[in-house]
Amino acid sequence: MAVVSMSAGGQAGRRRLYHVVSTLDFGREDVERLMDKAEQLRTESRERLRRRLEGAVVASLFYEPSTRTRLSFEAAVTRLGGRTLGAENARENSSAKKGESLADVFRVVGCYADAIVVRHHETDEIARALPVSPVPVINAGAGSGEHPTQALLDVYTIRRELGQVDDLSVCVIGDLKYGRTVHSLLRTLAYFRGVRVTLVYPQSLGLPDGLRAELAATGLIIRRETDFRQALRSADVIYQTRIQRERLLDPAEAREAEAFHILPEHLADLQPHARILHPLPRVSEIHPAVDDDERAAYFRQAENGLYMRMALLDDILGGVER
Amino acid sequence: MAVVSMSAGGQAGRRRLYHVVSTLDFGREDVERLMDKAEQLRTESRERLRRRLEGAVVASLFYEPSTRTRLSFEAAVTRLGGRTLGAENARENSSAKKGESLADVFRVVGCYADAIVVRHHETDEIARALPVSPVPVINAGAGSGEHPTQALLDVYTIRRELGQVDDLSVCVIGDLKYGRTVHSLLRTLAYFRGVRVTLVYPQSLGLPDGLRAELAATGLIIRRETDFRQALRSADVIYQTRIQRERLLDPAEAREAEAFHILPEHLADLQPHARILHPLPRVSEIHPAVDDDERAAYFRQAENGLYMRMALLDDILGGVER
Amino acid sequence: MAVVSMSAGGQAGRRRLYHVVSTLDFGREDVERLMDKAEQLRTESRERLRRRLEGAVVASLFYEPSTRTRLSFEAAVTRLGGRTLGAENARENSSAKKGESLADVFRVVGCYADAIVVRHHETDEIARALPVSPVPVINAGAGSGEHPTQALLDVYTIRRELGQVDDLSVCVIGDLKYGRTVHSLLRTLAYFRGVRVTLVYPQSLGLPDGLRAELAATGLIIRRETDFRQALRSADVIYQTRIQRERLLDPAEAREAEAFHILPEHLADLQPHARILHPLPRVSEIHPAVDDDERAAYFRQAENGLYMRMALLDDILGGVER
Repeated sequence: MAVVSMSAGGQAGRRRLYHVVSTLDFGREDVERLMDKAEQLRTESRERLRRRLEGAVVASLFYEPSTRTRLSFEAAVTRLGGRTLGAENARENSSAKKGESLADVFRVVGCYADAIVVRHHETDEIARALPVSPVPVINAGAGSGEHPTQALLDVYTIRRELGQVDDLSVCVIGDLKYGRTVHSLLRTLAYFRGVRVTLVYPQSLGLPDGLRAELAATGLIIRRETDFRQALRSADVIYQTRIQRERLLDPAEAREAEAFHILPEHLADLQPHARILHPLPRVSEIHPAVDDDERAAYFRQAENGLYMRMALLDDILGGVER
Repeated sequence: MAVVSMSAGGQAGRRRLYHVVSTLDFGREDVERLMDKAEQLRTESRERLRRRLEGAVVASLFYEPSTRTRLSFEAAVTRLGGRTLGAENARENSSAKKGESLADVFRVVGCYADAIVVRHHETDEIARALPVSPVPVINAGAGSGEHPTQALLDVYTIRRELGQVDDLSVCVIGDLKYGRTVHSLLRTLAYFRGVRVTLVYPQSLGLPDGLRAELAATGLIIRRETDFRQALRSADVIYQTRIQRERLLDPAEAREAEAFHILPEHLADLQPHARILHPLPRVSEIHPAVDDDERAAYFRQAENGLYMRMALLDDILGGVER
Repeated sequence: MAVVSMSAGGQAGRRRLYHVVSTLDFGREDVERLMDKAEQLRTESRERLRRRLEGAVVASLFYEPSTRTRLSFEAAVTRLGGRTLGAENARENSSAKKGESLADVFRVVGCYADAIVVRHHETDEIARALPVSPVPVINAGAGSGEHPTQALLDVYTIRRELGQVDDLSVCVIGDLKYGRTVHSLLRTLAYFRGVRVTLVYPQSLGLPDGLRAELAATGLIIRRETDFRQALRSADVIYQTRIQRERLLDPAEAREAEAFHILPEHLADLQPHARILHPLPRVSEIHPAVDDDERAAYFRQAENGLYMRMALLDDILGGVER
C-alpha cells in the first residue's frame, strides 16, 4: 500500500509505502526506489543512519519464530536509530494461546509502536487483521502465502550481482507449492520485463494453480524443466530453496528432490556469470563446499536483506513526524 | 512504597514511589499525581520525553508470558529514553527451572538494571523476594494476587472518560476469585469517595472472603447483582473480564458465565455516558461488533496504559542520579 | 585471540582481544589489562560510558537459555551505549531446529551485528563454526567445555576481594567433570603464580583426564581433599558450584554431594579473610543464611561480571571504526 505524503512545508511530498503485506502493495517503481535507497544507505555513515528513525519504535511480533528474519529487521531498525519491541515466540508466549485475535493485538501494539513487523503461521491472518491496525504493518512471512520483503531483497540481490533484472533467466528450485518466498519472488519478477522463469520441482510440489494462472496473466514466461543440469546450465540466476522433509511423503519423490541438491560437481555446469541465491536457512540442498565459489551469492543476499529492510523502514517511517 | 527524595540542591524533594508490588504501595494522593503526570506526558514531544530516563536500564522479567503487558512496559521505558533488558519467558528460559529463588534473581538483576518489572505465576513470590532487591520492583501481575499497574491505568481511564472517579457506579463482571486485575482495581477504587460497586459473577467465582472483608472495612459499597441487564443499565463503568475456561468445571456454570458476554444487543441497555472497560486480552466476552461503539473504551484503555506506565516509571526513576 | 590494532593516526595501536571462545584466547597480560579496565569502568560516569560503544550492535544468541548471563552481557552492551539484538531461546525459536549449522548463523548474523555473544548446548559447536564468522565471537558457555568470561569475572572477583591472585589457596567444590565454569577457571588460574588448588567432588565427577593432564603441565598445583571441613579451613577462596541432580545416578553419591553444601555452621571453619564464590544460580549448595556473612562474595561476583563484560566488550569493540 502506498501513500503520497505531504512534507512539513506543505509541498506535495514523495510517494512512500505504508502497509507491506503482499507484493501487491508495491509496484516496479517502488521496487526501484527501494533498491536505489538500499544502495545509498550502504554508503552512509553509521552516525548519519542513526538519525533517520531517531525516536521511532518498531514492534516485531513473531508468531512463528525466525531468528534470522527477526534479527535482520531489528538490526535494520537499530542501525537507523530506532528502537524495537520484540516478541521472539509470540505464539507460545502470548495471549494468542488464550484465543485473542491478531486484530486485537494490532490495535493494542499499534498504540505502543510506530510500525509492526509480524510473522504469522497462518496464511491469511495478517491480511485479515490489517484493517484495524493504527500503524503500518510489514509482513515478515505469512504461512504458505507471501514473504514480500524477502522478494525485495532477492530482486535487489539480482540487480546488485548482475546489474539488471529485466531479460534474465531465473531458475527456481524446490518447494513451489508451500514456499512463500518463491510465491513473492515470482510475483515481484512479474513487475520486470522479459524475465524467463524455469521451475524445477518434485511432482507434488508445483505452483498452486491460482498463482500459476495469476502469473501467466502478467505475461511472465514460466516453464518446467525436469533435467536439473540443463536447468542449471541455462540460468543467469539459480534460486534454490529448502524442501521441508514432511512435505515429501513419498520416498520416490524424496529421492527426486535430493537430486536437486547443488553439489560442487555442478559448478562446472553453471555459466561464469551465473549466481546462486537461497533465502536461507540452508540444510543440505546446497553443499557447503559450494560456498566459496564466487557465484554463491546467498550470504551476500542475507547482507543485502539488512540494507533492503533499512530502505523499506526508511521509506515507511523516515521523516514522518512523530 | 513511597519515599521522599532529596533534590540535588539539597531541598526537601517531592514524594515519589519506590517498589510498586501491591496497591497498598500507593494512596489516593499518589494515584492523582500519577494520573496528572500521565496526562502531561501525552502532550510532551517525543524528543523531550526521551530525556526523562536517558541512561536508565529497566529489566522486564516475565515468568508468565504476556506480550501486551511486557511490550507496554518496554514501550514506556523506550519512549522515556531508557533501555530495557528483557526475558520474554523467564520461567522456561531461565534457572527458575533449576530451582533458583526469585530473591537471588533480584539480587543479581538488580546489579544490572535500575529497576525490575516482574510478572510471576505464583501469587506471593514477588513479595517474598522483595526485601533483598537492591532496586525498585514493579509488579506486572502476580498469580491470582495483584496487578497494581493495571488498576492505575483502569482508574486513569475512568477519570479520562468520565471526568471523575468519585461517586461513580462501577459494575465488575467475570472471575472475581482469581482475577488479579479485579482485586487491584477494587482496592484502588476504595481510595476514592462514594464509589458503588456491583459484582456480576458465576457462583463459584466470587471475591475471596479475605478481600471481601478487607474492602468492606474501607467503606467501599459492594453488592452482587444477578440480573445481568439490570447491572448494565445502572452502571457508569462496566468492567468486563475474561473467565478462563478451566476455572468453570460445571457445565451449568459455564452457561451462566456465557450469559455475561456483552453483545451488540446489550448496547441499548447502556446509559449514553457509560463506558465499557476490559483489561484485555478479550476472547468472546465482548463481541467484536461492540468495538465501534463510542462507549467501548478498552482500546483507549490499553493506550492509557502506555502513558500511565510512563508516569509510574518517571515517578520512580525520573531525575534520580545514576 | 588477540590482535594488535592500528590507531586511526597510523601509530601502532594497543593489543586487543578478538574472538574469546576459550581461555586460550587470552593470557595473563590480557587478564590483568581487563581487570584494570573493569576497575576503571566502575568509576566512569554513566554518560561517559555510553559513548564507548555508541552505534555498535551486538547479537546475543542463547541456544541454551540463561537469563542471568544474557542479561549481564546485554546490560554491559547497553551501559556502554551499544545496542543488542537478542535470541533468548535460539535452539527452540530458530532454524537450528531445521538443521541449519551454527556456521551459517554466524555468517548471516555477522552481517547484522558487530560482535556475537553465543551460548551453545554442544561443547564444540562454537569453535567449529568460528572460522567463517565475519565478526568477533564471545563464548558465553559451551556445553561442558568452556565459559571463559565467567573465569575472567571469577579471577577479577578474587583480586578485588583479596588483593591478589598469585599464591592463593583455592578450593573448588562440586561437579568438576561437566562444570564448564570450573574448567575455564582452572585454566585461567594456571596463568598465575603459586596458586594451590584443592578439589572436593563426588567420586564420579572429577576432572576429565585430558584437562587434568593439561593443567598439570602448566605447573598448577592440584590435589584432591576428601575432608570437606579441612578443605574449607585451609582455603583463601572457596569456589562452590551446583551439581545437577541428573549427574548423580547413585544415591550414595548423592548423599556424598549433599555433604559438600555450605551451611551456616561451616562459617566458623573459614578463615576470617576467606571468600566464598559461586557462579550462580545457586540452589541448596549454599544455605541462604550464609548470604549475610561478609565472606559470602557471590553477589558481588555477579556484579563484577557486569564490569568485566563491559571491559571485555570495550577491549574488543571500543574505538573500532564502524
